[in-house]
Amino acid sequence: MGMDRNGSGAKPSEYLYPPELLQRLDFSKSPATFKPKISAAQPGEDWMVVRPLQRSDYDKGFLQLLSQLTSVGNVSQKQFDERFTQMKQSGGYYVTVIEDTRIAKLIGAATLTVEQKFIHNCSLRGRLEDVVVNDTYRGKQLGKLIVVTVSLLAQEVGCYKMSLDCKDKLIKFYETLGYKLEPGNSNAMNMRFDDPS
Amino acid sequence: MGMDRNGSGAKPSEYLYPPELLQRLDFSKSPATFKPKISAAQPGEDWMVVRPLQRSDYDKGFLQLLSQLTSVGNVSQKQFDERFTQMKQSGGYYVTVIEDTRIAKLIGAATLTVEQKFIHNCSLRGRLEDVVVNDTYRGKQLGKLIVVTVSLLAQEVGCYKMSLDCKDKLIKFYETLGYKLEPGNSNAMNMRFDDPS
Repeated sequence: MGMDRNGSGAKPSEYLYPPELLQRLDFSKSPATFKPKISAAQPGEDWMVVRPLQRSDYDKGFLQLLSQLTSVGNVSQKQFDERFTQMKQSGGYYVTVIEDTRIAKLIGAATLTVEQKFIHNCSLRGRLEDVVVNDTYRGKQLGKLIVVTVSLLAQEVGCYKMSLDCKDKLIKFYETLGYKLEPGNSNAMNMRFDDPS
Repeated sequence: MGMDRNGSGAKPSEYLYPPELLQRLDFSKSPATFKPKISAAQPGEDWMVVRPLQRSDYDKGFLQLLSQLTSVGNVSQKQFDERFTQMKQSGGYYVTVIEDTRIAKLIGAATLTVEQKFIHNCSLRGRLEDVVVNDTYRGKQLGKLIVVTVSLLAQEVGCYKMSLDCKDKLIKFYETLGYKLEPGNSNAMNMRFDDPS
């Protein structure tokens, strides 16, 4: 019973956003230094691919990867599907992943969200969210790769700026990628309503 | 030529989100202190109303109000209409305003944006954006009123937390409303791509 969504003969799994967007990113525009040079189109290993989230990624360990970052809870396939559909309908969600195609598992992820504004001539503002890399893949510049990918993507889709909140220990990392603490204006504050499960 | 969109006999101007949401907010849940007590439903003056952005607010000085906050540029009525429509279609945009109904002008505004997540059981995260109050209306607690309104709204629509970025001089104000700098994790960084017009 049921269809094998990823089986041979099935049509390719639906993308959250057009994968062509990632192929045209110009990594020479980023202040980040890659040694050796890699990019979203050429991530450095032939078994690695950088691409938008796909509906089939529930089966490729997407939530297990996120749980290395923070609590995820028990998200069913149905919940995942619904959220995927809602994000796609809303627009402005660019969840981006790195897959190890040898084992069909996701090993890195970062999200660009795009907020519509009235200010600055009805501009768009990007935000970097939920960055995670499987730490058994150290030394492959994957953290840098996934962050630079979605940062260039923000510019590609027309954002006037890209923002992030981070812990103290990550400031230097993000500075090497072009992010700045703006003097007198760099405070991230939160109000928490519930203990998330 | 053309219709008077606000003239007598015209149907009420379209809201960005259901105004009923604001009527049911429980201001006793906020740690903010109001003297005298006011709320979104009872803002303290009979000529004042707190409500969602309406399509007719282009003619009530919405963009002029925002220009007290930052650059807005020359946004035409068509551009405003398109952005209003896009926000409504996307969902998750709660632009909220205070009107002085005696002169049919907006005197305060703040935006809640709601971001869909996979983490924390497919949770929602709120953000406070673009807070502005006309400073000729000092002493009426309007800054506090509009921020508490959208903060309670975030909880009402199911966000697990609400976030904001702010300048150093505003930290104390936001602390009185329940926002916190989380030790070691309160850095807001930005990368700017273009000089916005």
